[in-house]
Amino acid sequence: MAVFLPKGTRDFLPLQMRQRRQVIETVRAVFVRHGFEALETPAFERIETLTGKYGEEGDRLIYKILKRGKGGEQGEADLALRYDLTVPFARVLSMNQDLRLPFKRFQMQPVWRADRPQKGRFREFWQCDVDVAGSTSPAAEAECLAVATESLQELGFTGFTVLLNDRRILASFARLLGVEAREGALLVALDKLDKVGKDGVSAELTGRGFPPELPERLWALLDVPAENDAALDALEARLDQGGRDGVAALRQVLSLSAALGVDLSRVQVAPTLARGLDYYTGPVYEIVVADGGVGTVAGGGRYDGLIGLLSGREVPAVGIALGLERLLTVMEERGMFADLTPEAEVFVTVFSPALLEASLKVGAGLRARGIPVEIYLGDRKLKAQFKEADARKSRWVVVVGPDEATAGTLTLKDLRRGGQRVCAIDEAAEAILTG
Amino acid sequence: MAVFLPKGTRDFLPLQMRQRRQVIETVRAVFVRHGFEALETPAFERIETLTGKYGEEGDRLIYKILKRGKGGEQGEADLALRYDLTVPFARVLSMNQDLRLPFKRFQMQPVWRADRPQKGRFREFWQCDVDVAGSTSPAAEAECLAVATESLQELGFTGFTVLLNDRRILASFARLLGVEAREGALLVALDKLDKVGKDGVSAELTGRGFPPELPERLWALLDVPAENDAALDALEARLDQGGRDGVAALRQVLSLSAALGVDLSRVQVAPTLARGLDYYTGPVYEIVVADGGVGTVAGGGRYDGLIGLLSGREVPAVGIALGLERLLTVMEERGMFADLTPEAEVFVTVFSPALLEASLKVGAGLRARGIPVEIYLGDRKLKAQFKEADARKSRWVVVVGPDEATAGTLTLKDLRRGGQRVCAIDEAAEAILTG
Repeated sequence: MAVFLPKGTRDFLPLQMRQRRQVIETVRAVFVRHGFEALETPAFERIETLTGKYGEEGDRLIYKILKRGKGGEQGEADLALRYDLTVPFARVLSMNQDLRLPFKRFQMQPVWRADRPQKGRFREFWQCDVDVAGSTSPAAEAECLAVATESLQELGFTGFTVLLNDRRILASFARLLGVEAREGALLVALDKLDKVGKDGVSAELTGRGFPPELPERLWALLDVPAENDAALDALEARLDQGGRDGVAALRQVLSLSAALGVDLSRVQVAPTLARGLDYYTGPVYEIVVADGGVGTVAGGGRYDGLIGLLSGREVPAVGIALGLERLLTVMEERGMFADLTPEAEVFVTVFSPALLEASLKVGAGLRARGIPVEIYLGDRKLKAQFKEADARKSRWVVVVGPDEATAGTLTLKDLRRGGQRVCAIDEAAEAILTG
Repeated sequence: MAVFLPKGTRDFLPLQMRQRRQVIETVRAVFVRHGFEALETPAFERIETLTGKYGEEGDRLIYKILKRGKGGEQGEADLALRYDLTVPFARVLSMNQDLRLPFKRFQMQPVWRADRPQKGRFREFWQCDVDVAGSTSPAAEAECLAVATESLQELGFTGFTVLLNDRRILASFARLLGVEAREGALLVALDKLDKVGKDGVSAELTGRGFPPELPERLWALLDVPAENDAALDALEARLDQGGRDGVAALRQVLSLSAALGVDLSRVQVAPTLARGLDYYTGPVYEIVVADGGVGTVAGGGRYDGLIGLLSGREVPAVGIALGLERLLTVMEERGMFADLTPEAEVFVTVFSPALLEASLKVGAGLRARGIPVEIYLGDRKLKAQFKEADARKSRWVVVVGPDEATAGTLTLKDLRRGGQRVCAIDEAAEAILTG
């Protein structure tokens, strides 16, 4: 048997599972508190549902499944693995016309991309999307920002910034610069600003054949005060009507976010923010963790045309995706996880084969009182069992020797604080539950 | 865009997700209480890890993934979708030689089989396995039975029976009947007893060329008293040493299960129980739900040779698998789910666009007090919003009209019990949390 994992995939052993569960359950609780509901879709879709939706690059990276039966021998594929959560969501909306709108769903599932694996980048990874379908209200954007910032806070992140822009502001720039036909190329270049700096973007723009004076004019347009209201005032004064619609939307998103409890000192209007994907139609945002060079941990925006394009059902939508794998990596590197010991903190030893039943009874008795209990199932001596309990980071060890079995008691040792006592099971349970 | 699901797959909409989560979290809590730890493996494995492990039929039903790049054009597959949880578990044990044994893991993940879809049978379905690797103690079997029966009880099942046998008893029958070389064929025929009855099994046996007098002798050997101890006594008296080892193991499993709190009146020694898979080496068991023709909801046994065979690392093992999809189907059909309304039971309306911020503030305030809250994000009038709250089965509706906004209060309506009050947010939160 090949004892290898496929390249770019991972097993999650118990410690990793505890970390992942901590993150997933934390953000899930935030989603639920905001009225988002869970949705899951199958791991694979019909291949025609996915192809052509992610660009040429995407089509190449989709995992394709061989047709079963005779077709398979010809190498024909009829299914493909989920590549993101947006296209399946659009399909669900299209297939379930009776879903009540606005529909707020979250979806946390793995996706698969045949990308080159690198540090922190996998071929199987989880996405974690929240979206509001069927609402044009900027309160929907505010919900997305509230849900993402509260998630980060509850995970223990402190220093993060929400960058906020509107696609209509960027489109207005393109028009003012007389290059509206090449808005896409302009945004692609601008999107690299945090990686290559102003000079890099300027070089790329002229390299792509934009007029030599365009970069200077662009930087002048983008130069706004740091303070949000002043920045929006400056933009409003500069932009055309389309751009001013974007500015007005951002004003609303800001005030509605504040009403929802988002700390506006963490939010920064950032007219240079483009976001890679070309389907955004209104506000776009990213959350960056400032220190440590971690970069973006969440991003999203409004995409009013996409669902109609994908599914034939016109539904305005806005969402945000948390970078689950990146959050996990950062939290692990920063030691943000509590010392996640196994949930069974009680280790019941087996004194001798003759006393196995007595130990099982004590273990079952503790479990019946709601306490997760590990009962030793190996065949080693008591001393080795204590070492085992220690290696498993058990807090408590229980011994049921001949005296205890006769008296109906047990010996409870506290490995963390030291000390031990001989007591009845009720007292032991009390000590463990309050310990 | 194709608005179809692949055949044999399902979307899980919020209601289904609530049901699935209720079942998954219930059994998860039981697993954790018994010291089992979570494990997850990737959706796909190298194709050579899976092929040849599930028999000819299995190989046909495995979903194969096309090689990316040039290979894919030739129709070559290098990966395959997870077909069960046992082979990946064996691979994990082989790759992680430092895992401390005994290792008790649970794994709840989807698997994929290109089987013909039929009622209650899907191409993507979840398996739910608990296994103890590295223990030869019959206490491990007892843990499996305890974990499965407690899971069923906590899910609300009342009338179920654990059928218990040992493969060594069946092997002993084959030897006593002089057909040890054809034990496999004997068990395949016997496995159909509950479907085709004694006459059917007898006919199959003679049809397969077993001696014509064999069925009668087999039924005589299998004829044991209903009471467990008497049944084991009868078997012990009849069987050879190998069979008596099986009997002794079952006596231990029974007494250790009782020590772990398993109600032995639910356990039935069943010498006819064969279990389909041929890798079992010791005790085997099935849990059947008696009424309603539901059949088997869990099954498993000891398989001491399999992991060594699959992974080259000799590890004795025993496990039980819960039929998650079947449990869900049965629970739904029997109305065993509580009325699972969305977790956000509070619906905050928006009186008018001018009062949106006031509603958001109230919604955020309730959320900050730990209450899941849905805030209306559509653009319809208050009356339609009330209908919406009703359709969503919200328990509470909050209105923040001009008077409330001025006074810093809100109106809270109880849709379940009727009645409404105008109050401050603290009082509303109190009413909702205690409601």
